[in-house]
Amino acid sequence: MARYKIVIEYDGTPFHGWQRQDGYDSVQQHVEESMVPFLKHAVAVHCAGRTDAGVHALGQVVHFDTDRDIDCFRLQECMNFYLNSVPICVLSIEKVPETFHARLSPIERSYVYKILNRRGKATIDANRVWVVSAKLDENKMHSAAQCLVGKHDFSSFRAVGCQQKSPIKTINRISIERYNDLIEITVAAKSFLYHQVRNIVGSLKLVGSGKWTENDFCTIFEAKDRTLAGPTAPACGLYFVGAVY
Amino acid sequence: MARYKIVIEYDGTPFHGWQRQDGYDSVQQHVEESMVPFLKHAVAVHCAGRTDAGVHALGQVVHFDTDRDIDCFRLQECMNFYLNSVPICVLSIEKVPETFHARLSPIERSYVYKILNRRGKATIDANRVWVVSAKLDENKMHSAAQCLVGKHDFSSFRAVGCQQKSPIKTINRISIERYNDLIEITVAAKSFLYHQVRNIVGSLKLVGSGKWTENDFCTIFEAKDRTLAGPTAPACGLYFVGAVY
Repeated sequence: MARYKIVIEYDGTPFHGWQRQDGYDSVQQHVEESMVPFLKHAVAVHCAGRTDAGVHALGQVVHFDTDRDIDCFRLQECMNFYLNSVPICVLSIEKVPETFHARLSPIERSYVYKILNRRGKATIDANRVWVVSAKLDENKMHSAAQCLVGKHDFSSFRAVGCQQKSPIKTINRISIERYNDLIEITVAAKSFLYHQVRNIVGSLKLVGSGKWTENDFCTIFEAKDRTLAGPTAPACGLYFVGAVY
Repeated sequence: MARYKIVIEYDGTPFHGWQRQDGYDSVQQHVEESMVPFLKHAVAVHCAGRTDAGVHALGQVVHFDTDRDIDCFRLQECMNFYLNSVPICVLSIEKVPETFHARLSPIERSYVYKILNRRGKATIDANRVWVVSAKLDENKMHSAAQCLVGKHDFSSFRAVGCQQKSPIKTINRISIERYNDLIEITVAAKSFLYHQVRNIVGSLKLVGSGKWTENDFCTIFEAKDRTLAGPTAPACGLYFVGAVY
């Protein structure tokens, strides 16, 4: 048996998320089905970051096992051929040690969240950004976000449906940068709670618009109470950037 | 009578170009029709850069005249309301002197052309880039392109259907930069021939892939013969960036 690592990019807009669900169109199903014509056997892949409906991936990482001796380049070409009708693209495939696990091995994962900060909807970036019309102060957002760095209880930013046992997570870095009307929030951690990034962004938006002070943000974070924090930012602005192994 | 300047962003994918054409969906028609509910009279707008079908605009500039005393902010909100179902967004509206003319007054226009240089189609950037799978050397492309700077006869990059009297144009700047898999070709000039940017890009791609040397490119440019130059790059990678007045 040999293990292979695949890096995948996708536009999450038309899918009901990464994970296979009966009766719904998932990225996982398309990826797995695109491998069968080449592998000649059914396959189940494991991924680094399960994305929700509408969330995009720039570098989703998956692994799979096979007994067949495969040519990575030919498998990639085959998958991209069968994925041609959906917005999913295989960027690379490589053989990895059998100890490699896409979900369990990452030492760091990163996400970027994109806010288009202007009046008027997105056109070229439709479904790829959250449009916020209130003028946001990205410096205040960046400054407030720094209290999240390190090992903390993230209950204030944990979705109700989160299945993880502990709300304790360690954020390695978070930065907020503006490029004209575009604000990018980049977050890196070994792992994340369900909706953690979108919940953080929903609250940082309140700092940016002046509804909350930076101190309010940190106080609400420390309260470990989801009901005190801001709403969940929409899925369409979120991108799984990649995983470091 | 007063004259107003409007800056507009659009995704060109669903339109048969900027210009009104009977029986076809044009950006101009949507823009003009979105103004009528507010202005209460028919209006004809003039634009800085007529874009072809599939070409995008980050900062298209138009002007129009009206006898009505209008509130620019309210007109912008009204237009964006009526434009809600199409990927067009009004970014700003301001009153300008009657000597201002969107098409005749620019001292400089600029375009950017985006190439996604990788194997495998675009997903998140579908319809927003030209995907070129052959590895391109952006430094050679940049170097070759510098022979275009200045006042020259651009017959080698002029479309057959170009209605301008003279093939002489002055390119102020052209630069080719790479950001990972993305190559951006930025060109600035007072005005352009029909398909000039797309024809230049189609030939620069041949330099980048190694089919032509930098010297080949400049020799073909100097030959003033469209038949010697490369094919026209696809519309979807081109963006009208803006005009300087």
